[in-house]
Amino acid sequence: MATTELIVKMVIDRWNGSIVNLNKILSELSDEQLQKEVATGKNRGTYLLGHLIAVHDDMLKLLGMGEKLYPELFEIFIKQADKEASQTPTVAELRVMLEKQNTHLQEKFQKIKPEEWFERHTAASAEDFANEPHRNKLNIIITRTSHLQYHMGQIALLK
Amino acid sequence: MATTELIVKMVIDRWNGSIVNLNKILSELSDEQLQKEVATGKNRGTYLLGHLIAVHDDMLKLLGMGEKLYPELFEIFIKQADKEASQTPTVAELRVMLEKQNTHLQEKFQKIKPEEWFERHTAASAEDFANEPHRNKLNIIITRTSHLQYHMGQIALLK
Repeated sequence: MATTELIVKMVIDRWNGSIVNLNKILSELSDEQLQKEVATGKNRGTYLLGHLIAVHDDMLKLLGMGEKLYPELFEIFIKQADKEASQTPTVAELRVMLEKQNTHLQEKFQKIKPEEWFERHTAASAEDFANEPHRNKLNIIITRTSHLQYHMGQIALLK
Repeated sequence: MATTELIVKMVIDRWNGSIVNLNKILSELSDEQLQKEVATGKNRGTYLLGHLIAVHDDMLKLLGMGEKLYPELFEIFIKQADKEASQTPTVAELRVMLEKQNTHLQEKFQKIKPEEWFERHTAASAEDFANEPHRNKLNIIITRTSHLQYHMGQIALLK
């Protein structure tokens, strides 16, 4: 009844649905709107967008799916807070990066077999994983979907 | 490898983790702060809190876990937009409702067997479910965790 294929579909569908929602929200916001703070004194839309791309880029490593597409984003959008970096990509550049990244992740996700999602992610040691089998690749998708939804709710306030 | 127990744990852990985060954010916000709009012209914290409680209350029905605790919240926090209702619970009352609800859901979740999470939820007909086995109870938790994270990101802006 609870097949591996079914549960993988449920989790990946929720990730894909979140990405569709994000694309829709971004399509309704101008570059100018995205440069505004989501609330007074809080992160700008552009920072949150860069932050999401940087975090999703890091997933490639965690999932053992090859190298990051944009390693330069880590410093700007994860290590540093908004308005700290002296040079950041433009909103237009971030939009292109996101689109390319979504296609890239889709291709990677389509190649992996359902049961491989239950293998350990690269941040868990083999020893850890023996005791904590939930530290698998599918759980990375579950937690990153949560993270995406959290910041998407903030970006949506710019509408 | 991908046992039913394991995948149920992964999904329920993410729900529980989201509830823990929500409680933490709410504990750091005064009733006065929660009465403010999360961003200029947007929903107030108190409305979003009531909305989450109302949506989680509806889960009881969808999961076939008995009657709603607070049916009166549907009209105020789902059907109506913020500031439409003439009478709404106070923030203090909503905090008590949330705490009681979390305990109630915990008790219900602990009683259900792992494989029962893969049974159809009550909004899917038996016919629908035969073709769409992902319309199960566990998927309700996956989608409602996404919803919770989305609005939690907004409430967190009040800090």
